[in-house]
Amino acid sequence: MNETQAAQLTRQVLDTCDALACHTEVPGEITRTYLCPTTRQVHEELRAWADRLGMTTRVDAVGNLRSRLESRAPGARTLYIGSHLDTVPNAGRYDGIIGVVFGYALVEALRERELPFHLEVLGFSEEEGVRYGVSFIGSRALVGTADELLTVSDRENQTVRDAIVGYGLNPDELPGAGAEDRPLGYLEIHIEQGPVLQDQGAAVGVVSAIVGQSRLTLHFTGRASHAGTTPMHLRRDALAAAARFIVGAEDLANRTPGLVATVGMIEAKPGAGNVIAGEVSCSLDIRHADDAVRAQSLQELLALAEREAAARQVACSVTPRMAEAAVPMAPSLRALLHQAAEEQGLTHPELVSGAGHDAQIMAQKMPAAMLFLRSPNALSHHPDEMAEPGDVAAGLRVGTRFLELLAAQAEQQVQA
Amino acid sequence: MNETQAAQLTRQVLDTCDALACHTEVPGEITRTYLCPTTRQVHEELRAWADRLGMTTRVDAVGNLRSRLESRAPGARTLYIGSHLDTVPNAGRYDGIIGVVFGYALVEALRERELPFHLEVLGFSEEEGVRYGVSFIGSRALVGTADELLTVSDRENQTVRDAIVGYGLNPDELPGAGAEDRPLGYLEIHIEQGPVLQDQGAAVGVVSAIVGQSRLTLHFTGRASHAGTTPMHLRRDALAAAARFIVGAEDLANRTPGLVATVGMIEAKPGAGNVIAGEVSCSLDIRHADDAVRAQSLQELLALAEREAAARQVACSVTPRMAEAAVPMAPSLRALLHQAAEEQGLTHPELVSGAGHDAQIMAQKMPAAMLFLRSPNALSHHPDEMAEPGDVAAGLRVGTRFLELLAAQAEQQVQA
Repeated sequence: MNETQAAQLTRQVLDTCDALACHTEVPGEITRTYLCPTTRQVHEELRAWADRLGMTTRVDAVGNLRSRLESRAPGARTLYIGSHLDTVPNAGRYDGIIGVVFGYALVEALRERELPFHLEVLGFSEEEGVRYGVSFIGSRALVGTADELLTVSDRENQTVRDAIVGYGLNPDELPGAGAEDRPLGYLEIHIEQGPVLQDQGAAVGVVSAIVGQSRLTLHFTGRASHAGTTPMHLRRDALAAAARFIVGAEDLANRTPGLVATVGMIEAKPGAGNVIAGEVSCSLDIRHADDAVRAQSLQELLALAEREAAARQVACSVTPRMAEAAVPMAPSLRALLHQAAEEQGLTHPELVSGAGHDAQIMAQKMPAAMLFLRSPNALSHHPDEMAEPGDVAAGLRVGTRFLELLAAQAEQQVQA
Repeated sequence: MNETQAAQLTRQVLDTCDALACHTEVPGEITRTYLCPTTRQVHEELRAWADRLGMTTRVDAVGNLRSRLESRAPGARTLYIGSHLDTVPNAGRYDGIIGVVFGYALVEALRERELPFHLEVLGFSEEEGVRYGVSFIGSRALVGTADELLTVSDRENQTVRDAIVGYGLNPDELPGAGAEDRPLGYLEIHIEQGPVLQDQGAAVGVVSAIVGQSRLTLHFTGRASHAGTTPMHLRRDALAAAARFIVGAEDLANRTPGLVATVGMIEAKPGAGNVIAGEVSCSLDIRHADDAVRAQSLQELLALAEREAAARQVACSVTPRMAEAAVPMAPSLRALLHQAAEEQGLTHPELVSGAGHDAQIMAQKMPAAMLFLRSPNALSHHPDEMAEPGDVAAGLRVGTRFLELLAAQAEQQVQA
């Protein structure tokens, strides 16, 4: 891809993201939850581009937009490229969407090239979990686990099945939404939504793994009493115990490479400045790419909470909220992404994804990889979310080269 | 006082507290704010007792109930005994009230004795600060500083002056509410509202000082960001900084004799488990009997807050809320309380008052002392607030002996 092409295609990617941002449920923001009516306009715009590229487009039974470019190579397998088209409330215009747009842009970039694999661009209908409180409805259809979600209800008591039928789709056709039996793999391009690439001065990065995470709520129960008349040694201060725990979580994460531990929610009761807190609830969110490290760290932190609570005659209990295993990205595809970036003269740090992505679902059925684009100021889930043209161009160069390398590899394998 | 007398008088004290508890603004609780209508019934019941004791009773210009027993001794000065008759919302029946009732009970106990000083029992109209957000309206009238409060408004936009006029009193007579020029002193008997006497197995205790206190709000401003995608070294976690501060406050208080430091209020925003807290506000309440120790400790803690905030690129600012100097109780009167308790065969630990009391106001104009009664389970400002008959009896014995000792001292001074 020469520079003019890259610049043109970058413009097209960003313009398309701008255009799609206009299709919202809530005027004045970008909000698009699962199968909301404006999903249709998003699909129409992308289908028009796919048509120009000679792709065949359909909407599958959970509402995923799927544009397919068939290879004429005998025994060709499918490479999936995509991300999601739904958004959080009052979102930015790139989280998810740019990965779908990249799929079409990469097909455009490689128009002249006959590929030895089918290419299918996926625009997942749901990833954020906003409407149903469960995430990944779109990608779960590809790996065959979306049927479990059909009976889940939203706040208006509409089930996922109702939503599908209401949109004019047929939930009985769900099996037809599955990925092919021996897919070549899945590539997802996504904004980082974090500060790592910016901090390292890199336009793009290769994801090594999607972290595993545990989320819990801790409850500390001491005794509310008078801040003036209760001497230190007779206190049962729930907030003092919780504060030790928060400090311990930060300390442990600081000394454990790759670990992040966050207490973002805390509530103290009765909550008056002159009354010792009798009850405190706080959250813990702990993530690591290695599940064993996460489990060990969690155990250590809960023991600390117990210890600091007991030292103050405070009771401590824990409510688990979520536990998800880490998902390593496929080494073969990661290697190709690194090689592609290297050949383009780009730095290509490897980093974990601290957030969940469709790639972690797709990885259940095929080799999956992710390329991150730098997020200016780490801003995401926010109207000011950004993607810089230079970084998009870098992503296009890496993506194009990645497909060429993958093609070469596939051709070699056929010859061998 | 023999045992039968003590038992009878104890019964009378507790029965009177029970009876006064019936006069409330809010049916089903004990709630009596400044000059509420039921104040009148409280005054009537106590006035009836005063009448039986041969005392002269009036209600002064801020609504204090004042029952006086004149001494026939030439040049006699006045000893004031009292506490407050108002309550917090949904209060117990002893906080304040029992100190007023004790005044009458001690006059009753010493009926046979001709005293060399006038005795004035004070039932202050306001101490808790509930209605006007300012405390000590009653005792401030005695020391001549209540006039500054006349223009303060309550939530219904009624000023203190309005309340006084509405109750049928005359605010212009405020100067007549002042204490006499050369008062002998002030004695306040009050429940401890803390766990110290219970912990030490003592029925009563002598207050060495009313602590000074500082109250502040600290604001930590970092940056809200994604708990998964933001590595530890790129965080600006306001809650992590605040937790270090809370731990530091507890540590400092634990290693500084007599210091109490409390963070009872904390708020973290945005307050989601998977978002790093960008903003945290928390309280600090710090108290000590020595103002220099308090000032030094406060300085140390604020420096710690600054340091821990700066280490995380978090800004820290402080809003002062209150600063009150410590008030030592009069050594002469404290000595007599100790002697009285000793002679009664009671343990008589000295302890600070961690809460404010009318005695700190009265101390501006005369020697002031406080005797604390044990608070079972440290329960106060609560309907289950208690005073045990045995502890009340002990208080009556100490109080009576204290008055006898003070009388002997006064008589000696006259003779000398």
